[in-house]
Amino acid sequence: MRTIWWDAESRAVGMIDQTHLPERLEDILVGSIDGLCEAIQSLRVRGAPALGAAGAYGVALAAARSGATDPAALLDDVREAAGVIRAARPTAVNLSWGVDRAVKAIDEIKESADADEIRAAALAEAELIAGEDVSINKALGEVGASLLEDGDVVLTHCNAGRLACVDWGTALGVIRSAVAQGKKISVYACETRPLFQGSRLTAWELSEDNIPVTLICDSMAGMIMRQGKIDKVIVGADRITKDAVFNKIGTYTHAVLAKAHGIPFYVAAPISTFDLAHSEEEVEIEERGADEIRRLGDRQLAPPEVRVYNPAFDATPIDLVTGIITERGIYRPPEIPFKNR
Amino acid sequence: MRTIWWDAESRAVGMIDQTHLPERLEDILVGSIDGLCEAIQSLRVRGAPALGAAGAYGVALAAARSGATDPAALLDDVREAAGVIRAARPTAVNLSWGVDRAVKAIDEIKESADADEIRAAALAEAELIAGEDVSINKALGEVGASLLEDGDVVLTHCNAGRLACVDWGTALGVIRSAVAQGKKISVYACETRPLFQGSRLTAWELSEDNIPVTLICDSMAGMIMRQGKIDKVIVGADRITKDAVFNKIGTYTHAVLAKAHGIPFYVAAPISTFDLAHSEEEVEIEERGADEIRRLGDRQLAPPEVRVYNPAFDATPIDLVTGIITERGIYRPPEIPFKNR
Repeated sequence: MRTIWWDAESRAVGMIDQTHLPERLEDILVGSIDGLCEAIQSLRVRGAPALGAAGAYGVALAAARSGATDPAALLDDVREAAGVIRAARPTAVNLSWGVDRAVKAIDEIKESADADEIRAAALAEAELIAGEDVSINKALGEVGASLLEDGDVVLTHCNAGRLACVDWGTALGVIRSAVAQGKKISVYACETRPLFQGSRLTAWELSEDNIPVTLICDSMAGMIMRQGKIDKVIVGADRITKDAVFNKIGTYTHAVLAKAHGIPFYVAAPISTFDLAHSEEEVEIEERGADEIRRLGDRQLAPPEVRVYNPAFDATPIDLVTGIITERGIYRPPEIPFKNR
Repeated sequence: MRTIWWDAESRAVGMIDQTHLPERLEDILVGSIDGLCEAIQSLRVRGAPALGAAGAYGVALAAARSGATDPAALLDDVREAAGVIRAARPTAVNLSWGVDRAVKAIDEIKESADADEIRAAALAEAELIAGEDVSINKALGEVGASLLEDGDVVLTHCNAGRLACVDWGTALGVIRSAVAQGKKISVYACETRPLFQGSRLTAWELSEDNIPVTLICDSMAGMIMRQGKIDKVIVGADRITKDAVFNKIGTYTHAVLAKAHGIPFYVAAPISTFDLAHSEEEVEIEERGADEIRRLGDRQLAPPEVRVYNPAFDATPIDLVTGIITERGIYRPPEIPFKNR
């Protein structure tokens, strides 16, 4: 089961609509760039690696749906769409990375190719990225599993699982790989307000795989660390700059707590998440709507006009990170060379 | 406006039903001990000081509603009810404290009083406790306001406001007193999962009083402390033992974060919250139902069978507390003598 794919028959991007989980597992087909941006902004598809694939499939979609017969006109359509997709969510670097890879694949053949060859090249690159994402996560999982001991209890935040990727997962991929090696691992999943990716997605994914999981509210992490219940923290990442890890809001709080309790704090992320040319202060943190916190469904949780601060991500200084688990090995800050990127 | 009171006409305990806030402000009359326990367990009335009044009013209610004409039979009825009320919520010491004070008031006159005099004595003690709670909170507010400077931004958790007390509030009482002194204070209110007392009650209370408030998810506290937005943390308490402060789950996490960021962490609580004869390990922490986390209204937030850990409170070691603001002054741990208690 993949989280995002190309549906050849309808020339559309297929995806699990994650907003319906855990109530029902429902797929949707997205046949326009507007529809794709809506799906990204509404978090029907989310998670840094999955957004990489979504970006590339978006370029393939723009190419497939463009009526242009002339290669230059097709390229114009694709470039315009690429800009729109990149802007859908600013913090996750993978979205732009996926878009850029697909555009680059087109650029490399544009001199000699006709419109259909350009369409085929965009789709081939997107399919390659999706396939690579699965292999990268499996490799990353193997690397990370070496850190886990039989019986370990892991705390995680948000969803860095197969639903955040094309398959397998990053933080949860490490756990899956350890379980596949025969280790007994159990998980505390933080529910992850305001959008409950921990309860809706992580608890669902792990339950489906029969990996023992206990759901807690985000604010309970301190208490259970103090109780000695947690051996390791493993989270994903949306962007890793030279000085900080950007991940779902609440990650920094867990990192401070982990340090205070002497618990290793690991980040699991593919190399595509790294943005070592930039530093924390250069990254825009997406702020989302106030009603994500003030309302839930038809329930008014707070006064309708009350001021809200709702950053989607926070930044964890690199010195709070014990290690970054990648498909190429574990980097222990401040050792982050990645010279071959 | 009081949070809890005696309704003489119906011989019942009146209270704001806090489960309906912020959608509507609705009073209920509670005419039985079962009804009172239900109201306490469902958090229609909650907050340590308000529970002190609820306990005493409960004893008055049991006395008023007992059909006994003989003082000894009336006392039996009252003692039985007292045991039931005390058990309604185990962690908040104030509930038992309020019950005990009303029972003691009866005990002191039982040799010479008839049944109606006993009823009157119980009610008089409950009314005294309720009135004292308001004066104590005002005194505590004055003491605490001296810690706040004009322009301060305060982070608080849960609701330690007038809705948690008979009136005025403890943590929010300190803020109200500072505002009454002409200081400009603004507040970050943590929403306080799973029951949203921060968004439903604190944000509502402060908005009603035109005190600037910004609502955040609990997990955002670390980020805003790192951003330098918070000058002080002030929370309430449900029980203070010789080594720890028990308060709403999530308090400990804020205390660790405050220490890591060099931000003063204050607890505002009346002396009745102290239980210095006991230590942390002797206090039972109430665990509440899993569906408080798995569901909200008709929304399924997590797989229906997923395991949940849902402690209602946590314990903050006293050495993380900068000061405890009481009606008698500020105690800076480890200096907690209270020798005159």
